[in-house]
Amino acid sequence: MAGALPRSPLAPQTFPDLPQIDGVTFAVAEAGVRYSGRADVMLAICDPGTSVAGVFTKSATRAAPVLDCQEKLGGSNDAGAAILVNAGNANAFTGRNGIDAVAAIVDATASATGLPSNRVFTASTGVIGEPLPHDRITTHLSDLVARQSADAIADAASAIMTTDTYPKGSTQVVNIGGKAVTIAGIAKGSGMIAPDMATMLVYLFTDAEIAQEELQGLVSAATDRTFNCITVDSDTSTSDTLLVAATGTSGVNVSGNRDFAASLQAVMLDLAHQVVRDGEGATKFVEIEVTGCTDEVAAKTHGLSIANSPLVKTAIAGEDPNWGRVVMAIGKSGAPADRDTLSIWFGESLVAENGWVSPTYREEDAAAHMQNEHIRIRVDCGMGSGNATVWTCDLTHGYIDINADYRS
Amino acid sequence: MAGALPRSPLAPQTFPDLPQIDGVTFAVAEAGVRYSGRADVMLAICDPGTSVAGVFTKSATRAAPVLDCQEKLGGSNDAGAAILVNAGNANAFTGRNGIDAVAAIVDATASATGLPSNRVFTASTGVIGEPLPHDRITTHLSDLVARQSADAIADAASAIMTTDTYPKGSTQVVNIGGKAVTIAGIAKGSGMIAPDMATMLVYLFTDAEIAQEELQGLVSAATDRTFNCITVDSDTSTSDTLLVAATGTSGVNVSGNRDFAASLQAVMLDLAHQVVRDGEGATKFVEIEVTGCTDEVAAKTHGLSIANSPLVKTAIAGEDPNWGRVVMAIGKSGAPADRDTLSIWFGESLVAENGWVSPTYREEDAAAHMQNEHIRIRVDCGMGSGNATVWTCDLTHGYIDINADYRS
Repeated sequence: MAGALPRSPLAPQTFPDLPQIDGVTFAVAEAGVRYSGRADVMLAICDPGTSVAGVFTKSATRAAPVLDCQEKLGGSNDAGAAILVNAGNANAFTGRNGIDAVAAIVDATASATGLPSNRVFTASTGVIGEPLPHDRITTHLSDLVARQSADAIADAASAIMTTDTYPKGSTQVVNIGGKAVTIAGIAKGSGMIAPDMATMLVYLFTDAEIAQEELQGLVSAATDRTFNCITVDSDTSTSDTLLVAATGTSGVNVSGNRDFAASLQAVMLDLAHQVVRDGEGATKFVEIEVTGCTDEVAAKTHGLSIANSPLVKTAIAGEDPNWGRVVMAIGKSGAPADRDTLSIWFGESLVAENGWVSPTYREEDAAAHMQNEHIRIRVDCGMGSGNATVWTCDLTHGYIDINADYRS
Repeated sequence: MAGALPRSPLAPQTFPDLPQIDGVTFAVAEAGVRYSGRADVMLAICDPGTSVAGVFTKSATRAAPVLDCQEKLGGSNDAGAAILVNAGNANAFTGRNGIDAVAAIVDATASATGLPSNRVFTASTGVIGEPLPHDRITTHLSDLVARQSADAIADAASAIMTTDTYPKGSTQVVNIGGKAVTIAGIAKGSGMIAPDMATMLVYLFTDAEIAQEELQGLVSAATDRTFNCITVDSDTSTSDTLLVAATGTSGVNVSGNRDFAASLQAVMLDLAHQVVRDGEGATKFVEIEVTGCTDEVAAKTHGLSIANSPLVKTAIAGEDPNWGRVVMAIGKSGAPADRDTLSIWFGESLVAENGWVSPTYREEDAAAHMQNEHIRIRVDCGMGSGNATVWTCDLTHGYIDINADYRS
């Protein structure tokens, strides 16, 4: 984990103006878990009646707070909920000590908020394998409860950052029957980012009224099209957590409402793109659209094979329209492909078709596209109707600088 | 493909003194396929009675010469065999033109050597997607036949190089019943190296007498423990080819002989290690031993997940014993693992056990090991008796420099 890094050149101009979500408040504290001189803990509290759904890393070496959260999903929403997150230490691979640390934080949060402990969701992000000094966190809990504010979501977005170079937020408003339903989300993540979630923490809040089971279904489906379609480095974290809390305070029941589902997915996609744009060392945002595959799974497999290829990612860093490496990545993916029905585009340039370079291809056109900050690669497999789009960034000296630094 | 690169710091001191293999001759030529001022084509000719076996890339976008070779394996050995290789152009993803180029080279080689065309094996390595100027090669064929020499295997090893910084060779002699059987091999490869073969060309020659089917079985099994256990960058080439030619000229039938099988595997492992040691930008040779898994496949899956992780590879480049990233890589591999039965060693230092850092661990010991050129990481999963060892190199600025260069 490196020190202060320059803001990513792909960062959005500004942090969005996130609206209040009725029934949700936030506070942050400087607990000094690892960093000093910045907030590193955030506590969010949701009103009684809040449904909480979530998705988590599939890693076989999941961190203690992830295992704890997974057990608690689906519980009754009568009592509201609390979310407590620290940055700087992942409390992952910390054995019995890690389980004890989660219990200590959950108990202290439950005690300070008056919530039952099965409604306290925690997450930790940062270094793996070091004991979490949980007393540095718990000592701030009564203060965190006392300072809760409906306006502090931006502070929360900053408090959960690790190697992130900017805080990440997104919002949507859906009008349903003349009434507004609001969604606001924050995320962190910049390395150890791969499908099946990543070193990502994502918290979404909405005043929609929706049952926990339906909310879980929506967020799981949207994750497959958003966070599970991005990759920075193919490495999957032990700590990924996405939670969505629906307070119901708008009084609008969104059950079965497609606009709400689409807006929730739009917030998730925006946050997912912001994570890629903060990819360690990234200088290019890369969109890879794969069409014409035998099915959607094959399309996503090809897309991620291209997106994870070090040779493709370094070629993009070098602004080289090296489509031979795209052919290589499709060939190695394991999903069905036919060399002779492949077509490949860089930007608007048809590069290859019928198993060879296109007769209309002019390298200067593709090379000009590669100089953009937003790179678009499209592949059509010519085999069926399965489509997918994935997003990644380039692989640069910056990634090496950040990750070859000794931890201490 | 970059220009002249400095010799890898992990390179062997010298090229080995490869013995003549009775019944095999070589010659090289400067055909100017892409490079100038160096030999870039080699022709080997094997006597009648030579068995030829081989393994190839599993890429779905295999190059034309690979498809041609695959069709020819298993043919009669009455007529001998020829092997023609060019460097600088892979003749991959070159459509109908690529097939025609292979046919032109095969026909010209058959004509110049007097061999039937189904005993001419070709390979091309280099840039993908550009037409192979095959006439530059065929024009040299009668000269290549005229200059055949039993002593020119070292020249052949150099002629097939692309981004390699040194030629690769290895040899073993087996004594069977008081008679010597000799094996000599050459290889090229340094990037686009991953399991299921890689941008690798490997040619092995022996004077052993062995039927084609048995030779194929030996080389396939040995590949699983050697070339398919190395990775530089997880990218798999469209052109990987390994051929072994057994002339039978020693008069020693090695059917069922374990010493011969072990020696063949030893030559292959040595060459595989030399490919890793020439990994693009490599400064560390990394051996990853995984034991105690549910089976051998799981052990290899964990080993390759560690070996391919950009975060593990950059940590090694930074000489950081960042075992948390090893835990992460095991967790994401998909093979069975139990966080609480994992043990991890860096060199001789037991780093983690029972789901946490070992009580005897002293970071300075592991950090001292990381300063070596040969890094050893051992993982025991504590679940069974499946073992595997894989080899890789670190991920450094040198890899980015080499691969972010524009092709032209």
